[in-house]
Amino acid sequence: MSVFTPVSESQLAAWLKNYSVGAPTRLEPIAAGIENTNYFVDTAQGRYVLTLFERLPAAELPFYLEFMVHLARHGIPCPAPIADHQDRYLSTLNGKPAALVTRLEGSEVEHPGAAHCAELGGLLARMHLAARSYGGYLENPRGPKWWRRAAAEVRPFLDASRAALLDAELAFQAQHRFADLPRGAVHADLFRDNAFFRDGRVSGVFDFYFAGIDCFAYDLAVCANDWCLVDPERDRRLDGARTQALLAAYGAVRALEPGERAAWPVLLRAAALRFWLSRLHDMHLPRPGELVKVHDPEHFREILELRAAPESQARLA
Amino acid sequence: MSVFTPVSESQLAAWLKNYSVGAPTRLEPIAAGIENTNYFVDTAQGRYVLTLFERLPAAELPFYLEFMVHLARHGIPCPAPIADHQDRYLSTLNGKPAALVTRLEGSEVEHPGAAHCAELGGLLARMHLAARSYGGYLENPRGPKWWRRAAAEVRPFLDASRAALLDAELAFQAQHRFADLPRGAVHADLFRDNAFFRDGRVSGVFDFYFAGIDCFAYDLAVCANDWCLVDPERDRRLDGARTQALLAAYGAVRALEPGERAAWPVLLRAAALRFWLSRLHDMHLPRPGELVKVHDPEHFREILELRAAPESQARLA
Repeated sequence: MSVFTPVSESQLAAWLKNYSVGAPTRLEPIAAGIENTNYFVDTAQGRYVLTLFERLPAAELPFYLEFMVHLARHGIPCPAPIADHQDRYLSTLNGKPAALVTRLEGSEVEHPGAAHCAELGGLLARMHLAARSYGGYLENPRGPKWWRRAAAEVRPFLDASRAALLDAELAFQAQHRFADLPRGAVHADLFRDNAFFRDGRVSGVFDFYFAGIDCFAYDLAVCANDWCLVDPERDRRLDGARTQALLAAYGAVRALEPGERAAWPVLLRAAALRFWLSRLHDMHLPRPGELVKVHDPEHFREILELRAAPESQARLA
Repeated sequence: MSVFTPVSESQLAAWLKNYSVGAPTRLEPIAAGIENTNYFVDTAQGRYVLTLFERLPAAELPFYLEFMVHLARHGIPCPAPIADHQDRYLSTLNGKPAALVTRLEGSEVEHPGAAHCAELGGLLARMHLAARSYGGYLENPRGPKWWRRAAAEVRPFLDASRAALLDAELAFQAQHRFADLPRGAVHADLFRDNAFFRDGRVSGVFDFYFAGIDCFAYDLAVCANDWCLVDPERDRRLDGARTQALLAAYGAVRALEPGERAAWPVLLRAAALRFWLSRLHDMHLPRPGELVKVHDPEHFREILELRAAPESQARLA
């Protein structure tokens, strides 16, 4: 259940009068999503998603929305925010910040093959090239500063071996900072459930509400850790063919620099650490009133251990 | 034939490397169009139209392209210009200013019914509401100043009765200026061949290269003079049902002000005068090397006479 703020048909119709998309013909709550209230909205003009922002800091919303606007203007298939008659992407509905974005077609791919990973890699590289001209600034809200804060909060809930793994990884990552790697606005959460495919091609990427400024190669590592596992349930090593497909397709559009290739094993660990921490945080320190399904932190604990192992195959040639 | 500047597949592929839409898979010249060179371009990402601007003044191009960007951001179905890696909508290809825009789906409706006119009227009103926040400025390039210049040039080619009609209409229009009517960026050329329909709904409007700042109601009059004729070949009076459908659907979104209703008969004449003049100009003063089909000026001469006739049914209640 993720409708925190109900919207009635008459409320929607009144709100949409300030937009140029025509009158609503359909309003349907969307069950997915943990941070926002989402509805599918159809009008005579097209199909949209209405989002009421429940928890995200208001100051961050323009970064996310303008990033989507920027990518859409560059031809990246992502939800395009619709401006209202005051030329704003963000207004207020039922007391909440609200935005209307275009609805993407397609469906998730739960078991991607090498061809899907290649599609994703090419799109991610095109996103990164487009992102270079984006002027918004928001440091990755789930970056190293947040790791340290979250680690301090969840550490009391961990057994000795997990606490040791966490301490060791934080210390390891603190020795590897990548200020010189190509950076820009990145999605930073592009898991399989945040991309749609149609006819074998990526038809859209969405849920930009963890986006921020970080290394482009970190964004790629987040993808590898979700899209390229041998078996997400039983074997969390990187599948060679899919990882190679992801990286080759990415590199064909934006060649990885030597520094990015050298940093790859560290970035895979950083990407695992970030999601281990957020899942631990969601499990042990749920926000009041939160009803969402908690994902198992152990999934990313195991990914982190595998990537950190001396025999890890994560290194790039 | 309207490919003035040929583009090869390898030239296109090199040019597209500066965009985030992926590599081209198809390049096909478009026969229609008289001002520009147009190609259909497909990539793995989507379908686009490539335009090389052959004749339009370079200083005017940003107004047109930014207007399309603005309308697309507001959810109006029109070609959305794609920004390149320097965040520009306009770059250079084979020595010509060039732009890539999204391709619309749908097809023209040659014989619109009242339902089509209602669709158009609603969309036009939504365009006008969205246009109010557009900051670009370009006085309608085919407005009153241009009428007088064009009239002086074509007058020597007219017989006495047509010259008298022209003189009388210019004098009449000079007595009716509408500085107080709601104004903004308008399409100003939204004939049937500049709109696509799909499943009975407007799926897109295009060819914004005559756009400019003018009265919103003038834009509506241009539409009425093309979409609402009893029979474009034989009876150029306004069809009551279609005209009513156009105006009612428009008014349901943006109510016409009393001043606009009062000006309506004059605006219908102005819209007829503008196209009579441009067709006369195309016929008698063709530009060097121009190979386009010339539309018959008599069509709009007759529309002008009908709208100017004392028994004209153009007046609004």
